[in-house]
Parts: sequence; C-alpha cells; structure tokens
Amino acid sequence: MKVGIVGATGYGGVELYRLLSNHPHVEECILYSSSDMDVSYTHVYPQLNTLSEHVLKDIDIEEMKANLDVLFLATPPGVSSKLSPSFMGTNVKLIDLSGDLRLRNKASYEQWYKRPAVNGDILEQTVYGLSELNKESIKHAKIIANPGCFPTATILGLAPLVEKQFIQVDSIIVDAKTGVSGAGRNASQATHFSEVNENIKIYKVHEHQHIPEIEQALQQVNPEVPYITFHTHLIPMTRGIMATINASLKDTLSTEQLINEYRQYYQDSSFVRVRSQGEFPSTKEVYASNFCDIGLSVDTRTNRVTIVAVIDNLMKGAAGQAVQNFNIMNGFDETSGIKLAPIYP
Amino acid sequence: MKVGIVGATGYGGVELYRLLSNHPHVEECILYSSSDMDVSYTHVYPQLNTLSEHVLKDIDIEEMKANLDVLFLATPPGVSSKLSPSFMGTNVKLIDLSGDLRLRNKASYEQWYKRPAVNGDILEQTVYGLSELNKESIKHAKIIANPGCFPTATILGLAPLVEKQFIQVDSIIVDAKTGVSGAGRNASQATHFSEVNENIKIYKVHEHQHIPEIEQALQQVNPEVPYITFHTHLIPMTRGIMATINASLKDTLSTEQLINEYRQYYQDSSFVRVRSQGEFPSTKEVYASNFCDIGLSVDTRTNRVTIVAVIDNLMKGAAGQAVQNFNIMNGFDETSGIKLAPIYP
Amino acid sequence: MKVGIVGATGYGGVELYRLLSNHPHVEECILYSSSDMDVSYTHVYPQLNTLSEHVLKDIDIEEMKANLDVLFLATPPGVSSKLSPSFMGTNVKLIDLSGDLRLRNKASYEQWYKRPAVNGDILEQTVYGLSELNKESIKHAKIIANPGCFPTATILGLAPLVEKQFIQVDSIIVDAKTGVSGAGRNASQATHFSEVNENIKIYKVHEHQHIPEIEQALQQVNPEVPYITFHTHLIPMTRGIMATINASLKDTLSTEQLINEYRQYYQDSSFVRVRSQGEFPSTKEVYASNFCDIGLSVDTRTNRVTIVAVIDNLMKGAAGQAVQNFNIMNGFDETSGIKLAPIYP
Amino acid sequence: MKVGIVGATGYGGVELYRLLSNHPHVEECILYSSSDMDVSYTHVYPQLNTLSEHVLKDIDIEEMKANLDVLFLATPPGVSSKLSPSFMGTNVKLIDLSGDLRLRNKASYEQWYKRPAVNGDILEQTVYGLSELNKESIKHAKIIANPGCFPTATILGLAPLVEKQFIQVDSIIVDAKTGVSGAGRNASQATHFSEVNENIKIYKVHEHQHIPEIEQALQQVNPEVPYITFHTHLIPMTRGIMATINASLKDTLSTEQLINEYRQYYQDSSFVRVRSQGEFPSTKEVYASNFCDIGLSVDTRTNRVTIVAVIDNLMKGAAGQAVQNFNIMNGFDETSGIKLAPIYP
Repeated sequence: MKVGIVGATGYGGVELYRLLSNHPHVEECILYSSSDMDVSYTHVYPQLNTLSEHVLKDIDIEEMKANLDVLFLATPPGVSSKLSPSFMGTNVKLIDLSGDLRLRNKASYEQWYKRPAVNGDILEQTVYGLSELNKESIKHAKIIANPGCFPTATILGLAPLVEKQFIQVDSIIVDAKTGVSGAGRNASQATHFSEVNENIKIYKVHEHQHIPEIEQALQQVNPEVPYITFHTHLIPMTRGIMATINASLKDTLSTEQLINEYRQYYQDSSFVRVRSQGEFPSTKEVYASNFCDIGLSVDTRTNRVTIVAVIDNLMKGAAGQAVQNFNIMNGFDETSGIKLAPIYP
Repeated sequence: MKVGIVGATGYGGVELYRLLSNHPHVEECILYSSSDMDVSYTHVYPQLNTLSEHVLKDIDIEEMKANLDVLFLATPPGVSSKLSPSFMGTNVKLIDLSGDLRLRNKASYEQWYKRPAVNGDILEQTVYGLSELNKESIKHAKIIANPGCFPTATILGLAPLVEKQFIQVDSIIVDAKTGVSGAGRNASQATHFSEVNENIKIYKVHEHQHIPEIEQALQQVNPEVPYITFHTHLIPMTRGIMATINASLKDTLSTEQLINEYRQYYQDSSFVRVRSQGEFPSTKEVYASNFCDIGLSVDTRTNRVTIVAVIDNLMKGAAGQAVQNFNIMNGFDETSGIKLAPIYP
Repeated sequence: MKVGIVGATGYGGVELYRLLSNHPHVEECILYSSSDMDVSYTHVYPQLNTLSEHVLKDIDIEEMKANLDVLFLATPPGVSSKLSPSFMGTNVKLIDLSGDLRLRNKASYEQWYKRPAVNGDILEQTVYGLSELNKESIKHAKIIANPGCFPTATILGLAPLVEKQFIQVDSIIVDAKTGVSGAGRNASQATHFSEVNENIKIYKVHEHQHIPEIEQALQQVNPEVPYITFHTHLIPMTRGIMATINASLKDTLSTEQLINEYRQYYQDSSFVRVRSQGEFPSTKEVYASNFCDIGLSVDTRTNRVTIVAVIDNLMKGAAGQAVQNFNIMNGFDETSGIKLAPIYP
Repeated sequence: MKVGIVGATGYGGVELYRLLSNHPHVEECILYSSSDMDVSYTHVYPQLNTLSEHVLKDIDIEEMKANLDVLFLATPPGVSSKLSPSFMGTNVKLIDLSGDLRLRNKASYEQWYKRPAVNGDILEQTVYGLSELNKESIKHAKIIANPGCFPTATILGLAPLVEKQFIQVDSIIVDAKTGVSGAGRNASQATHFSEVNENIKIYKVHEHQHIPEIEQALQQVNPEVPYITFHTHLIPMTRGIMATINASLKDTLSTEQLINEYRQYYQDSSFVRVRSQGEFPSTKEVYASNFCDIGLSVDTRTNRVTIVAVIDNLMKGAAGQAVQNFNIMNGFDETSGIKLAPIYP
C-alpha cells in the first residue's frame, strides 16, 4: 500500500515512520510537512541516516488523492479539522492522530478544546480507533479517530469493570502520569529540561481535554457512567504513561476473580497483557512497544479496586495504535509491523 | 546544646548534619554509626570536606546519656524500638525519624510493619511530631515520633478539610509519588539506576505502612474517618514527594472559599504555603527546603476537591521536620536553622 | 539455527534475546542461567510476557554440545575462561561478550583484569569480533571475542586515522562517557539511582581494563601506536556511549578531507555512519540500534582533530555486535535481524 | 549594603537572590528586569513565596546610581556592554556575570562572540574575578568580570600546573561536561527535555567562546601557553560542571607530589578542595555549594597528568563566585553568606 504521513517532523510522525518504513504491507511512505517542505528528512532526524532518503513534501490534497491509499494525520490541534473533509468520498482512508475528530459532540469539543469543531458530518463517518472495543467498526471504517494517549491507558484499564457493571459508576478517580514526549517536539518553558528534571508537576487540573474522550468511551460500554475525575502529571522521563485508577466495587469481588474477568475480556486482544495477582507493570516494561499492561488489586478494607495500566505514549498511545488500526481496516494481521519487544532497560 | 545523630551515614542522617552543623543553638553535634565506627565522616561523604572533622562513633548509651541534650535517631526499622527505652527517665530528649514509634496501636504496627512493636509504655510518652497539628504537645515532649514523608504531605493536605468536616469521610483517595532518596542509601535492585530511570513504578499497593499513620493522624482531627485509599509511586528523581488527594465535598464550596479556609488554618504555620486559585506547586519549588506547598481546586462537575501537597522528603519529610521539632521542644524559634530557600532550578 | 545464551538474565542477555528471538535465521533460542535455573524468563523480565515461554535452564555442557549451533556467553568476568575451553574441537561456535578472551597477551590480561587469564591455547583460535576491521577472519572463526563497549566506539572512531598514519601516534587522548546499563543489572552503591542521578563521576582513572583492548586493536592497524590516554565517566542515563577523541595531525588536513577518508574507509560497513561537516552525533541518535555514528572536525588553531563516536552500549557495544558477528560467521547478511531504526526520542 | 540585580528572572539572577537575601552584609536587594517589570518576583519564582515581597523594577540608571552600592549584572550577551559604561566614575561597583567584559582583547571578543565588543576603556578598569588568582586586584576593583562557568573549573584545575611550569605548554586538552541550567532559563529545541534526557551532545566544537577566556587566564600565569583544546558536552542533569583535563608532564612527578603542590597553591583558597590520592570528585559533591573540588592522577605509562575539577555552574560558576567577589571587594570575609554545604544526595 501507499501511505502518507502529514506532520512527519513531529514525534508522532517520526514514530509512525519508524513503524511504516518496516511494515510488510507498506510499499511506499510519503512524508509531508507544512513547515519543512523540501527538506531532507534525515536533516530533521539524523538518526534515520542511511534508513531514509525522503524529502519532505508540501501538503497537496490532489496529489494525495491520486497517490495514497491511507493518510496518517499526525498534526497539531485544528489541522485535521481543516484537512479531513477534503477526503470524504475519496478512496483515501484517513487515520487522524490528533484530537480533532474524537468527540462526537461538537459542543463538548468546543468547550474542552476551546477551538471550533470540525465542520460538516464527517464525525458520523468517523470510528473511534480503540480496537479492543471497536474492532468490527474499524474493519469497515474510512476515517479513524486514533485515541489519545491518556484515554488509551485509562479506557483499557476500566472497560471490563465498567461494561460488566462491577463498580459504582460515579466512583472513578484516575491519576495519570506521563513522560514529556507527549507534549510534542516544540520547545516550551513547560518542557524545558531544567524545569522538568528532578520535578513533578500536575497540569490542566479538571480541565484536560482527554476527560470527555474517556467519558464518551466509557459511556459507550455503560451509559450510566456520569463522569470521572482525572488528573495528569508531568514526570521527568521521555516516554511512558501510567494510569492509576480507583473505583468502588458494587459487590465483593476478589483480586483473582477480577484478573480472570480482565483476561477473558482481553483474550482476543494481542496487545493487552493482564498481570498475575501481586504484580503491577511499570512503564519501562512496555517501552517502545505497542503493549498495554494492566495490573490490579482489590483492597478489602475499602472495597475499592485499584487498576494500573501502562503504555508507551508514542506507541500504543499514538503511532503504534495508528498502525494497529491501519492493519485492521485493511484486513492485515492486527500485529503486522508492530509486534516489537519492549526495549529494556 | 549538644546533640547526637544515630545513623549519620544514611541520607536522613547527613541531611540532619547539614542542618544541625549550621544551627545557631547547636554547640556540638556527635555522629554515631553502628556500621562505620571510627571512620572519618568525610570518607563517607566527601562533600563535607573542610566542613566536618567528625569521626563516627560507636553507639554507647551511657556516653550519650552523659553528653547529649537531644538525640536524633535516623535509623532503619527496628533500631529505635531497641534503643529508645534506654533513654526513658533520662534528660536526653529523643527525636526518632524512623517509623518505630509512630503508631499508638501496637497491633496495628505489627500488622503493617510485619515486625514486633516496641516494648513497654514508651508510646504513651511519645508525641507525633507534626507541629502544624501538635505544636503544644511537642513543646513539652521528651520523645518525638517524627512523621513519615508521605504522611507529612498527605496529612497537611487533608487536615483542614477533615477537621472542618467539609468532606465525606470515606471518600479520601491519595495518589502519592516519591523520588528515590526516600528508599535510603542502601543499594537494591528496586533503586538501581537502570531500573528506575525512564520508568514509573507503583509499589506496596494497599500495603504501605504509612497508611495507618495517615489514618491515625486524620482520626485525631476527625474520629469519623474510617480509612483512606493511598498509593505510592517511584519516580525517576532523587528528592521530592507529591500527594495528589481527592475527596468528595459534603456541601458546595468554591475553590476560593477552600483556599481561604486553608490559609486561615495554616496562618501560624511558617512552613505551609497555600497557593492562589489556579496555581499548583511542583516538587522542585520546595527542593532542599522545609516548606510544604499546597494547591487545590474544586471540580464543580463532580463536586470533588483535588488537593496537591508537595514536600522535599529529606527535609519537611525527615530531617527538616526533625529540626523543626527540635526547635519547638527546646523553645527556640520554630524556623531556626531551617529557613532556607528552595534550590531552583 | 539453534542458539543458546548463557547469562540470559543480564542486560546483555536480554538484549540478545530481543534480537535473536526475531532473527530470520534462528529457529530456536535456549536460555541458560546459573542463578535462576528453572525460573520462567518472564518472571525475571515481565516485559517479555506473551513474547517468551522460556524457562531458564542450568548450564549443561553436554546438552549444549548436542543441541546448539552457536552459543553466546553474556557472562560476568571469569565465566567464559572456564566454560569456553570445553567447546574447543566441537561444532558449537562461541561468541563471548565478556572480556575474558579479548586480550591476546595473557600477562596483560592478568595485569589489567586482576584475575587469572584463560588456560590453554584457546586465544590463538579466537578472533576479535570487530567486523569493520576483521570481517574476513570472522567469517571463518569458531570463537569470537565480542569487543567491549568503549573499545567499539573508540576503535571505530580512530581506525582510519591510525591506519592511514595521519596522526602522531603518541597523541591520542580519549574522553568517554557511558550510560549506567554498561555496569550490568546487579545493584551496587555506584549505580544506586540517588547517587547517579544529577551527577557525573569519573572512574577507574588510568586503570580501565578497556585500555589494553583499544591499544591492541589500534596496534593491529598501526604497530607504532605506543599507548593511549583513555578516561571513562558515568552519566545519568541508561544507554549510550560517547567517545570524544583527540589527536594531533602530522600534516595539514581539512575536516572535509578527513570526512571523505572516513567515508571511504567505512564504505562497506553497514553500521558506521559518518556525519557531514559541522554535524556531530548524539547518543540518542543511535538509541537501541546497532549503528556507530561518527562526526569529526579539525581545529586549525591547534592542528588537532576531534572525533566523536557514539553507540548504544547494549547494541553495537554488546548484543547487536554479537548478532552481527553471528551473521558474518554463518554467512548471513550482516544486517539480518539488526537493521533497526534508533528509538527517538 | 544596598545591592541590585539586573536579570533577576534568569537562573543566575535567582541564585544570586537566594544568596544575597540571606547575606549578613546586605541590607537591601533591588531586583530589575527589562522583560517582567512591575511583576511580583514570586509570580515568576513561586518557590520564593513568603521569602520575597519584591516587585521587579524597570532598569533606571539614575535611580541605580542614587541607591545602590553594588550592581550585579546577570544578563544575556550584549547587555552589560551597553549598561556598564554608564557607571564609570560613579560610586556603584559592578559585578558582571555575562561574558561581555571578560576578554581584554576586543578583537578576540568580536571573533569568538560574533558581536561588537564594549566601547571605550572600561576593560582597563575591569578585573577578572577569579579570586584564587586575582584576590589583590579584586580588593580594589570597581568593575568585576565574573568568570564563566567552564573557565572557572578549567582554570582552577590547571593554574598550579601551568604557573609552576610542570607541563608542556602546548599539551592541554580539556573535556568539559555541563548540566543544562548553564543554558539559562529560556526554552529552546536544544534544551527541550525530550531531546536532552537519555542523551549526550557535544556542541560548539572548537568554537566555544570560553576558549579564549581560559587561554587568557592561563597566559596570565604563564605567557608561554599557546592554546588549549577544549570541548563542551551537554549532559542530562540540571546543575554541575566537570572539566576532565589532560596535559603532558615535562619531568617525572608523582601523583602525591602534585597533590601536595595543589594543596599548597590553594592553601588560602576557602573554596578549593583538593582530594587525596585515588579519589576523584563528582559534581554532586559540590551541588548548590561554592566549592571547586579537584582530583588528579599521574599516568606513569604516558607521563600525562589527568586533573578533574568540578563546580556547580550556578554557584562557583556564576552567582556564588559573584558573591565571593562582592565579599572581597568590600572587605568582608570571603565566605560570608556562601559557606553552604552541598546538597546531597
């Protein structure tokens, strides 16, 4: 297949390139950038010397329509809203890694993102690309809204509990921690090394735009979930997300029972790994891989359950999951090109 | 005054030395170590070259009784239980930085610490040295149980809410993160650089020995608190603790109202700083200082309040707080020798 | 082919496993450990869940001889000296990642390693596995001494200069920096997170056992090199080595001329990449890959040349290079299974 | 005394404030900023809450002349060149932390800094503020050029060797490593966390503006030094500089002899600490202190000496040294306000 990446100079873009350039079903990968057109890709990313001879191309929708089977949009907020409608009705499938197409409710988008929602009815044709929940829809999708990094870990950590109605629906509290690469490649005071190193910060308290995305997905599996509490912290590391999730059980369930439920729920999910009792995953154990690892424990004192879900934010939280969706929507093996062992240590 | 430090070779011990060797009311500081006796202190800690000429002494209780006004115990679990009874009825005041004397209920100690509790009635004479709650008792104390690092941040973050009965008492969920120095100076696989760097781990899930310590202190200000949920995470940094605290409000309160309540509650507490609306502290903002900084926000969607409390685990979470207690119990200004600005960046 | 790894629980061992378990010419990979026999490999390394079903086996030389084509020794100092002679005259090829077989001069080994050298004449049959210099010998080797991490970067950075006699032979000064994973998986005070983080240390000044290994390799290409000065520093990161190399030019050469010489010298070396004028590689640009990237610059003020060579110490500095040797000695494409793009960021 | 800081919002400025606000001889400290005037200092640096009530003032030279005894300039390149001439002939003493006034040769400044040198004859009245070499001149100085961070470590590491003519003058090669705070507080791609973490970079190869500053200082103690080779590397840590220095001995000298020479040379220097044979300092051992620690070793194989000098770049490499100069030029004890123990770990 012939694929394109818009936003190839970003961290999500270069991770997509790493995967797609070794993908068994990708014949050609064309790289687009609005900021660095006509620049050699190895000039931007010298680590790709001898591995890439690409020159970044300007965005040209007609050329894309003529040449591409699938277009990945790894772009800042607002870009997909503008680009994606041009591809409706064409043969080019879209996989959008930005948040532009994730919320089905435009008012909600505008409230949380503080920018205009996409025009038109493109959202109706968009499938939320969390394959562990939506694999059938993804198979037939023309447009994928690739999930956010925090939502991926959080929803996978919660879906069995919520769907099976094991918990009090208003009791969900999630404490999430992320490495800095989630903030992208552009420098800012907030990601300045001297400010981040030897430091933890909480940010966007009660205002993170991933909150409605998580709520929408949980409500898909159980419409009674009213809201969640969700916090995000910046941690002095580059890659990795951990979601530490708390909820109150409705009935008495043992840790062992719940682990069995999770394993059953994810038995067909190649990239979800549920740990045994007493074991919890760390982020390094999924580093540079597409896995989501989950550990959990019931606290009999409080009758609360604690779930820990970890991913690599650039892989299962972005590029890896995008390729997983690419595989599913094109009928390839779900793991093609992304069955990579974590890098350790 | 003449003071002694048992466990001077540990991280808590050397931080105590840094503070006490510059303290205006300390005339002499004697250093003890059971593992490195007769060794020069600068051999263990070369950063003290030209600042210390101490030789580590073996523990000799008779000599301590004869020479010391105050003895700091910065020792591993179990040591204070054995040493402290020898000082009952003497003129030597004790400040114990270990967890041995913190829990008033011996059965609880043995359950959570999985080791025998201290013998005898020493606990009745021990005061829990969180001066923001117990200043009057500390003034007259002969024995101080210096609070743990996580409890210090968590209790200070919760005390106003709990004491004033603003929250549902069974709704407290705390997600804590710590730098690695809290694990002490002894090397282990869990603190090996290659395992900790670029990684987040959760540990002791539902089993951390600081849980009963926090519950005991909260029950002191409001006996109706039944339990808390409390998680600890290891973060790739050396110093700093952040407690992210969630609780459900009983009534409707604004962020501004709560901030005012906190500021009033801590108006006489030199080391607690409550941030303005919209501002949250990061751990680096208290680095190497004795401050506990607190930020908070009410989420009107969920009627939950989120409080963030940060400390330096070796200062307000250990040595700094011990010196604060030393000041109070000896009638000195509470801030003597510890009014230090955070190191930034 | 059927391959075995002794020392599979170490960092070099698990990196070997990552590569060999995806290698197109490896049919089976058997894992040995003297410390964790009969333990599941995923118990030691949970990141391999669903990717490995291996159980660690005890070392059994007769079984190895019967079952293996190639045996990788990723073992602490002294182990290969004992194990390797048993395989002389058998069909099992050995690739030794330890330093035991690297120095041809046993007296030198004993002086620098401070332990007994290997017995017998095994060294005469051992080939130093730096394929960029010794590819022909490797093709026919039965035993490979896989180069050390520092020597790999340093020798590759110096070989063209030394072989072509561009520099004064007694003028070489190398300042090397390494991430902590080079020290292995066992915890120690020297690799304790709180000691390494926010810190740089120099170690083994003038006494590093890689000094004679580098000198031996340089003398292979130019016997007149009398010695080098070589320093090693521990840096707060997990992976990566940078060698910053200085030497005095004999004649006047421009940076451009030297870059051309280097590119010519390494034109058939798939994993050496020479940067253009004005560009220098950073360690992250080879992270988790088998590349050695080189940048250089002539200082016309001093007539010295500065060369910077970077590798991933666990890949080109250990496991990656071992697989490269495996490929060459078995007639496979040199890049089989190791043509991996660096992980970035 | 009344002192002012221009550039109080930078990292050098806030470190100066930390020291001067606790200095026994500073009565008032006025803070200036051209970018954040009328802003509360704690708004910029929340770690100073309750420790500072300053509001940043605009730069007003007449007001400064009227109110200040000493003015510290902690400003970006080019600012001091413009501001400092206004203070010639006034009673305000200047301590300039920028590089503007360090090079006595204006052509050299313009060559290395690539910007115009200061106008007029201010350089003739400026004293290079490395007190270990120039204490007498500093006592009477009206204008101090505070040394750069790299030059401080390098010159202190080399001065005894060079002055006593122990080494071949053309043999000096220095490999320096720095934490990121030396790059200042402004964010850039080069200091973006995701680019710096788990990475080492070399930068400004053969072009660093600190090269002529070091050469000028070495030529002051021995005019025969023709040049040095000097490299700078960016390390994933916030504070700290290590200079690893190599030189060829003219005669045979033992490590012990040289250590004695160094100790004698620095016997009146409160902040230089020379380690014993076999010991080398790490940067953490001077963290947040004004010390420069030095270790050295003679390599009898090569007859080269290796010296390692470490400082905290924001203390002895900037603000601490500026206060040391402030003390000396005003007749105070050299250590007033800066005799602080390193923060460890």
